[in-house]
Amino acid sequence: MGQPADHLVENAIGREVPEQINGEQAIPFQGVGQYKPSGYKHAPRIRSCSDYPSNGDKRVASLKEALKKAGIGEGMTISTHHHFRNGDLLANQVFEAAHELGIKNLRWFPSASFPCHEHLIRYMEDGTIHHIEGSMNGPLGKFTSEGKMKGTGVLRSHGGRYQAVQDGEVKIDIAVIGAGCADAFGNANGLYGDSASGLLGFALADSEYADQVIVATDHMVDFPCVPWQIQGNHVDFTVELEQVGIPEKIVSGTTRITKSPDRLLLAEMTANFCEATGILHDGFSFQSGAGGTSLAVGEFFAQKMRDTGIKARFARGGSNKYLVGMLEEGLVDYILDGQTFDLEGLRSMRDNPNHVWTSPFTSYNYHGKGNFAGMVDVVVLGATEVDVHFNANVVTHSDGYLLHGIGGWQNCLFSKTVILPLPLFRDRIPVITDQVTTVCGPGEMIDVVVTERGIAINPQRSDLIEKAKGSGLPIRDIHELRDEALKICGKPAKPRLEDQVIAAIKWVDGTVIDAVRKVGK
Amino acid sequence: MGQPADHLVENAIGREVPEQINGEQAIPFQGVGQYKPSGYKHAPRIRSCSDYPSNGDKRVASLKEALKKAGIGEGMTISTHHHFRNGDLLANQVFEAAHELGIKNLRWFPSASFPCHEHLIRYMEDGTIHHIEGSMNGPLGKFTSEGKMKGTGVLRSHGGRYQAVQDGEVKIDIAVIGAGCADAFGNANGLYGDSASGLLGFALADSEYADQVIVATDHMVDFPCVPWQIQGNHVDFTVELEQVGIPEKIVSGTTRITKSPDRLLLAEMTANFCEATGILHDGFSFQSGAGGTSLAVGEFFAQKMRDTGIKARFARGGSNKYLVGMLEEGLVDYILDGQTFDLEGLRSMRDNPNHVWTSPFTSYNYHGKGNFAGMVDVVVLGATEVDVHFNANVVTHSDGYLLHGIGGWQNCLFSKTVILPLPLFRDRIPVITDQVTTVCGPGEMIDVVVTERGIAINPQRSDLIEKAKGSGLPIRDIHELRDEALKICGKPAKPRLEDQVIAAIKWVDGTVIDAVRKVGK
Repeated sequence: MGQPADHLVENAIGREVPEQINGEQAIPFQGVGQYKPSGYKHAPRIRSCSDYPSNGDKRVASLKEALKKAGIGEGMTISTHHHFRNGDLLANQVFEAAHELGIKNLRWFPSASFPCHEHLIRYMEDGTIHHIEGSMNGPLGKFTSEGKMKGTGVLRSHGGRYQAVQDGEVKIDIAVIGAGCADAFGNANGLYGDSASGLLGFALADSEYADQVIVATDHMVDFPCVPWQIQGNHVDFTVELEQVGIPEKIVSGTTRITKSPDRLLLAEMTANFCEATGILHDGFSFQSGAGGTSLAVGEFFAQKMRDTGIKARFARGGSNKYLVGMLEEGLVDYILDGQTFDLEGLRSMRDNPNHVWTSPFTSYNYHGKGNFAGMVDVVVLGATEVDVHFNANVVTHSDGYLLHGIGGWQNCLFSKTVILPLPLFRDRIPVITDQVTTVCGPGEMIDVVVTERGIAINPQRSDLIEKAKGSGLPIRDIHELRDEALKICGKPAKPRLEDQVIAAIKWVDGTVIDAVRKVGK
Repeated sequence: MGQPADHLVENAIGREVPEQINGEQAIPFQGVGQYKPSGYKHAPRIRSCSDYPSNGDKRVASLKEALKKAGIGEGMTISTHHHFRNGDLLANQVFEAAHELGIKNLRWFPSASFPCHEHLIRYMEDGTIHHIEGSMNGPLGKFTSEGKMKGTGVLRSHGGRYQAVQDGEVKIDIAVIGAGCADAFGNANGLYGDSASGLLGFALADSEYADQVIVATDHMVDFPCVPWQIQGNHVDFTVELEQVGIPEKIVSGTTRITKSPDRLLLAEMTANFCEATGILHDGFSFQSGAGGTSLAVGEFFAQKMRDTGIKARFARGGSNKYLVGMLEEGLVDYILDGQTFDLEGLRSMRDNPNHVWTSPFTSYNYHGKGNFAGMVDVVVLGATEVDVHFNANVVTHSDGYLLHGIGGWQNCLFSKTVILPLPLFRDRIPVITDQVTTVCGPGEMIDVVVTERGIAINPQRSDLIEKAKGSGLPIRDIHELRDEALKICGKPAKPRLEDQVIAAIKWVDGTVIDAVRKVGK
């Protein structure tokens, strides 16, 4: 199985990418901000209230019934969302139903996949699912990397997913939106119910642009379900299920900051760098992810803010109890949240009007009239690899396996300063290399790499280099750091990659920035 | 000046309506729910963040500068909104600027106009404005009725306005959205600032679909302006003005229920009817307008609810201190508010999460996947005239002058029961007639007319007729009420109408339900 290698072309950063993906024309990456879209947004069909129940009750008896009423058929695009994370019980049920109905060659368009979706491999094998566009994490990534998926995978950032839907690059036939709480009309939110997830922003594009929209919940409330994060006016059918998610796998009861001394060191160095260079200033803004190191950076920020009397205007979430603590302590005026990771985040979003839910539209869509990403002073992100040109990889490991999604990572690169705190090596494999296996972000967008053995600043950021002078921080050339890693680890084995392209990596503007190859045996 | 009478056709309720309006094809009304739209929603151009300031600051120095940057030109459609009601200082400035720039033949597309816009008559006279699509209240209505406007006016309901924009029936070139509060990126709300108006829902369609969007405020705050009732991601330019509205004319400090014994009687009879027929039941929902009689109905409802222990699930606003009182007393679970009329409404919307801001999209758009209107158990509305077929008029007076807009009136007709409490005559002119001057709502949508001399139930509502039996309520045939009015007032003079069509009345689906004629001298 698997697609033959497509005709390849070299894009603006010298990566060979397919001209066609799954039979559709693709545009090679042309440089940051260089591709200018023409044309018009995707225009959904005009509907009439006369075709919907006047009492607003759009309930149908089962998910299968809803899919049938929505006209599920061969080759359609079905979208789901990752609000329930690894506790999702919905996507598997959708494709079980599709399988039972004998539908083939579906395009699965999740906002992300999780290990719980390993169950879907059988439906890729039996032809129910043709290919995935969305993250192929863990088991699905391995399956894809081994060339077993019928079509070519397409990975997009959260913002790129909104862009693709808005622009009509991906036309969704049926969106199935799982919600913690909904009413019969389809108004829905992630704030209440056993499967509360915080917010439903990843499904926003789908609700606006999909031809048919199904809302599924295990907590149906009387109209009105308030607030309506998903608006029932976009919804065709609603369905009440026994259970849509496993609560303890949706939001964790406790978030924990790393206790690893190595990671804490990286976090402290990152915070020190921000302080020394004036990034940490009154009214600043920041975003740090949900990983252990990122969480720790936030805590170091908090301590410095307390010490110096500095306040942040806003923090972008992923929210968790630490960020909520900063909001409640008054260190941060607003949390602009895209994803809620724990129960404290959920509580805060529910009760505190300054804990604001956002969406990939507001925060990340590159084909809008601006977005929030560029307004953030500093983001702290992870990567699997970074190279001496500051290009970075978040989707493949150095062995070539596709094991992660892009998430909001590419979108965050547009913030004023991007910092990657990374260990110099992992499992004796250097993290700083000559060339990353997969380019997810071009080097010009990445400003600082913080390692335990020194901080490398992108030469383009002469302002930061200047500000760091005399700070006592261990500023080093990225080539030195690469050399040091090599000296310690030795030259790692090259991944055994074949020619066949198993997935394409899209940039935030819909162009193809890189291709992922099949991993050989 | 004025348009020659267009070729007319008879629509489904026998009204003669133009086939073309301002040179564009129009569809005659085909009956409620009979016109099925085909085609696709209006698709705005795809934009790129690379064309907007990366720091999110979209401020320009003046309104004129913003209009120039937005490319204002001959024949364009410029929209404004009535959130500032009769305290609006923005629309006049927009057309002053257009006049100074020498632009001609603009289509003004307000969500409503007020007497404060009388100033714009000079720009209709000098050719800056070609015609108005929106309500032509007071002085503008008189001007239009006298045949002095260059083009033909088009009146739409609030929902019809959303529908027209969504469907591409009206393509807005430049939307100018006045906001009580905004940030430089264009996020805006009506909750804060001297010109706070409550909400900005009437501008939602414009923000989503207009080619260029300008947000103007006199209260610019640091990003993020929260909550973002208008999303900055839809906005091209922001501008800070000295003053956008006159506070005391935007929201009143005090709302007062009518003290007129006649109106109080109508209100009490209406509430008694709702009680007797079981419309007032636990979990019911209602909407009553901002007029004195409607307010009084709400108060009678409240008293009955206290007496019987009934609670309402939701009330649709226009909100005011009386409705807020019901919410805070626990008589109502939610206010779903479309327009805030006083300071108490404003405070409640700002502070109470159960006081929810809605929009013409959620509440009224007929070309969506359902809307809220049909879910409301009972609405209490006004009218200038109603006829023996229960057709009702809200835009013209019996002398033929176009003096009011439709507002949400047509949209509300979709609720489960529509009640019009009306005096039998006003200024010795009968309100119940053989045929209304202008049909805004077809008789099949109007269920009950309550007058001081009896209550007429639409024969189609045999269920209500049955329920009212034995209630002691003065149920009467509508013909009897007409006869009684005639007997008291005598036959009123016919309005002196000429053939020339000066405005068209659209139904909620974009079809033409009636035409308004020039008033002769």
